[in-house]
Amino acid sequence: MNRVITIGREFGSGGRELGRRLAEALGMAYYDREIMTEIAKRTSLSERYINQVVERRPVPLLPITVGHTFSPVLDAAFEQNQAIYQEQRRLIQDLADRSDCVIVGRCADYVLRERRDLLSVFIHAPMEFRIQRAREVYEKDAANMEDFLRKKDKQRAAFYNYFSQNKWGDARHYHLSISSVYGVDYVVSILKDAALTFPGGAD
Amino acid sequence: MNRVITIGREFGSGGRELGRRLAEALGMAYYDREIMTEIAKRTSLSERYINQVVERRPVPLLPITVGHTFSPVLDAAFEQNQAIYQEQRRLIQDLADRSDCVIVGRCADYVLRERRDLLSVFIHAPMEFRIQRAREVYEKDAANMEDFLRKKDKQRAAFYNYFSQNKWGDARHYHLSISSVYGVDYVVSILKDAALTFPGGAD
Repeated sequence: MNRVITIGREFGSGGRELGRRLAEALGMAYYDREIMTEIAKRTSLSERYINQVVERRPVPLLPITVGHTFSPVLDAAFEQNQAIYQEQRRLIQDLADRSDCVIVGRCADYVLRERRDLLSVFIHAPMEFRIQRAREVYEKDAANMEDFLRKKDKQRAAFYNYFSQNKWGDARHYHLSISSVYGVDYVVSILKDAALTFPGGAD
Repeated sequence: MNRVITIGREFGSGGRELGRRLAEALGMAYYDREIMTEIAKRTSLSERYINQVVERRPVPLLPITVGHTFSPVLDAAFEQNQAIYQEQRRLIQDLADRSDCVIVGRCADYVLRERRDLLSVFIHAPMEFRIQRAREVYEKDAANMEDFLRKKDKQRAAFYNYFSQNKWGDARHYHLSISSVYGVDYVVSILKDAALTFPGGAD
């Protein structure tokens, strides 16, 4: 049995950097955008389109015309979103079966919730910290940064809540939630310790 | 500057045992019911009454008659609840100033939120785990145990949400949230590590 760590995160909290560094520290595979690329290959849909879908709650409003069906366009788009989620779900399961890994985002904690070797993590940080970090990392203007971050969080929450029927950011849905406010080094060190001594799937 | 760890927890998750063992492992003072006793001494109210108040959201329905006021009884009871909370708040602040300590419950994380040496923790566990544990620890009948636990959680949430204006159990209000499903030893070890390497209040 493998060891699988999933990471959900608030936008700007550094969850992706943390995930990458944790995977490196533990010698595990790391997935985030790679999953999207893989899905794109499998479904022949463009990566850009898939990113659009997975970043938002799939409401049937995407500008897709589906020629081979008599269903109304609205239903077809909705079904397409569902299909992408299902494809993504299968891919995440494949990846988790294949090797020890860290998977960032994509409802992976929910998809893999039955695995006894799962350590699911949620990373968050205070708004001021995220604004500061987002300005450095994304080189965006400070104006409206708070609005931008709140919108991103809202999208993630909507996507997660829609497909998981859990509540994004509720401590009780993750094994371990931690603030990155005290620095990436501190969090990586705690998560590494948590993963190495993790008793899940031991028997 | 001291080091202060606060622990919020779901009923039956083992948060209090964890807190006690963590304090022991770190050589820190430990407070939970002691705070209540101390408050009782200060305010000359019975400990039993105070426990009733702090376990529930203070709605103005408690059977208290206040002879020295012309306010309606409802307002008086409400003010009394507020007074107890304020007294408790001051005591928590005193205790945190006095020495390194672990404080379980009582909105301590919110009361001490401005301290830079604070590590606030939330302990939770799946319902099945808590039912099993509660049956062993409290020797209660299994019948209606789930209802009993949900009611207890509801009371804690109401009390916390009322006085803190935060949302009980939301990962984003705590530095670290962790499930006790993998055992007390595992969680104590992770929290000990987190406390010993904690960079808060370092400069």
